[in-house]
Amino acid sequence: MSVHFEHETLGQRVLFGTGTAAKHLAAEVARLGSRRVMVIASGSAVDVAATLIDNIDVVLLYTDVAPHVPIEKADAARKAAAEADVDLIVCVGGGSTTGLAKAIGLTTNLPIVAIPTTYAGSEATNVWGLTEQSRKTTGVDNAVLPSSVIYDVELTLSLPVALSVASGLNALAHCVDSMWAPRTDPINQALAAEGVRALSSGLRLVASNPDGRAGREQVLYGAYLAAVAFASAGSGLHHKICHVLGGAFDLPHAQTHATVLPHVLAFNAPCAAEAEQRLASAFGSVSATDGLDTLRTDLDAPRALRDYGLTERDIPEAVRLIMPNIPAGNPRTVTPENLDALLRAALVGAVPGQ
Amino acid sequence: MSVHFEHETLGQRVLFGTGTAAKHLAAEVARLGSRRVMVIASGSAVDVAATLIDNIDVVLLYTDVAPHVPIEKADAARKAAAEADVDLIVCVGGGSTTGLAKAIGLTTNLPIVAIPTTYAGSEATNVWGLTEQSRKTTGVDNAVLPSSVIYDVELTLSLPVALSVASGLNALAHCVDSMWAPRTDPINQALAAEGVRALSSGLRLVASNPDGRAGREQVLYGAYLAAVAFASAGSGLHHKICHVLGGAFDLPHAQTHATVLPHVLAFNAPCAAEAEQRLASAFGSVSATDGLDTLRTDLDAPRALRDYGLTERDIPEAVRLIMPNIPAGNPRTVTPENLDALLRAALVGAVPGQ
Repeated sequence: MSVHFEHETLGQRVLFGTGTAAKHLAAEVARLGSRRVMVIASGSAVDVAATLIDNIDVVLLYTDVAPHVPIEKADAARKAAAEADVDLIVCVGGGSTTGLAKAIGLTTNLPIVAIPTTYAGSEATNVWGLTEQSRKTTGVDNAVLPSSVIYDVELTLSLPVALSVASGLNALAHCVDSMWAPRTDPINQALAAEGVRALSSGLRLVASNPDGRAGREQVLYGAYLAAVAFASAGSGLHHKICHVLGGAFDLPHAQTHATVLPHVLAFNAPCAAEAEQRLASAFGSVSATDGLDTLRTDLDAPRALRDYGLTERDIPEAVRLIMPNIPAGNPRTVTPENLDALLRAALVGAVPGQ
Repeated sequence: MSVHFEHETLGQRVLFGTGTAAKHLAAEVARLGSRRVMVIASGSAVDVAATLIDNIDVVLLYTDVAPHVPIEKADAARKAAAEADVDLIVCVGGGSTTGLAKAIGLTTNLPIVAIPTTYAGSEATNVWGLTEQSRKTTGVDNAVLPSSVIYDVELTLSLPVALSVASGLNALAHCVDSMWAPRTDPINQALAAEGVRALSSGLRLVASNPDGRAGREQVLYGAYLAAVAFASAGSGLHHKICHVLGGAFDLPHAQTHATVLPHVLAFNAPCAAEAEQRLASAFGSVSATDGLDTLRTDLDAPRALRDYGLTERDIPEAVRLIMPNIPAGNPRTVTPENLDALLRAALVGAVPGQ
């Protein structure tokens, strides 16, 4: 098979350890020579941030964070950063907090050190987003890519186990879908497979031992890889389907992903031999479909879209809305007929691919 | 198992395709907005370079390249770059040519686009080297990392098959040794495993169909991954052994690597379960040792160090020289006794690990 691809590897330091965030942050601030640090955190993450900043020169602790980065919030934060003459942004929190740091980075080129407390993954990408009058604009700029990311599961322990598993399955969907997404390449596939390996073993550990650190470490590491692979490869068939279902039928995000993924995998696998093999190997299973199915059973994951509000009457409309969004290069040709069958299988929770 | 690591991902665009180098180079020059390009190439690579530069603004074609980047050559090239007021360096060739481009980048911060014609791998690292009065100095600086690498197997076809296989096995050794090298981490291991996958399938194709492109694509792609993983993970036990054997006993580089690798793998594998599993899966084999052994047989690779000049009398001296260089964190404790046994097995080409 011919090898041809264009891959942009994003330059970033990744510091991963349990109980080491404060030490890693101090080391990064020293390495960057930063003397005027702006720390962004909100809600419960403010307390988390407070435990990390004893040994660095913080000139501004900024807490005015809102989802989807409203442009007014971004402008206020940029102004505050300029007035305090900061030379480094440290963001401690989830996607909204990282998003605000990126909004500042976009106009100031200030370096960012991201300390995620969720599995959102934004910290590993050069994608920014801003919302103006309810309209979200996104873009790609290396100026918003955090120069360092500090991962520490001690900071993620406030995530309840159920949310941890749901987010982990969401990350798993990013990995699986990266295998055939429009800009996929063998590097993305290798990183996505490594993500599947980490997530499938980690999620089992989290479910069986919710208080342990080992499972959460694997899940956090897997979520990082999922973000790297997905940002590079783009949205595949699974995400296009889930995006439509979530938007048009108001289905819950995590459950939709968990329910649809096995059916997309079973749909594409017969036409994507190499992806199937990589996934099977990453699941440690005889086939990719078996591997995901066993994991779903072990985690007691959601199985049927009808349990979350979709009805049989919605299927034709869903097919109509999804068809124009089928991503280029999907390994198997999608027709209204086979898409209808896929959605019906997901609706009732049938055995995938049968 | 606990996850903790510090990993620096180097930011770089990788453009990979067969017969696409000229197109990719023109696109990169346009993307970077470069108008005064310095092209470095020497020997047969000058002709190769000439085929690539029709659509870009070359102000200087520089051909004075020597192995190991003598400081005088570096200074002359820096001076030429300054006099011609260049805004981009394009290097077409092997490790020496890339090395000269890096020497210029080190003092000028000029961006570099690397177009490798061998499997040397320097294009994927931020390591530079300079030689002054026969003494080589090396260092690490992101200023020398090529911003883009353009891979095109059409440019590597002048590598004879035997050299292609030898270099490919050398890259394979980088991948395998990355599994337990001092700074290894799961990201390096995943990339190294992907390298093993590409190299083992590619080398078989090159050997069975020397004129085909498919095998060479896989080997070139695998050699790139080997460089990425090895630069990040550092030298493991295998490379420390080969370095001593090559230096003290004047053994040939490629053959020494091919001969020693299976014995280091068999030595470490029982104490490195996860690495063993990753490698076995990448070889598509029941065990890592089996996978490498089958590949060696398929490629008719060198098997015994005595065929290349090492004698039984040399073993005690080799043990003495290697022992102080055992890398930190090798999965199995190395003693003079078990190292002696490893070297004796490699000397006569015994079945590894028995």
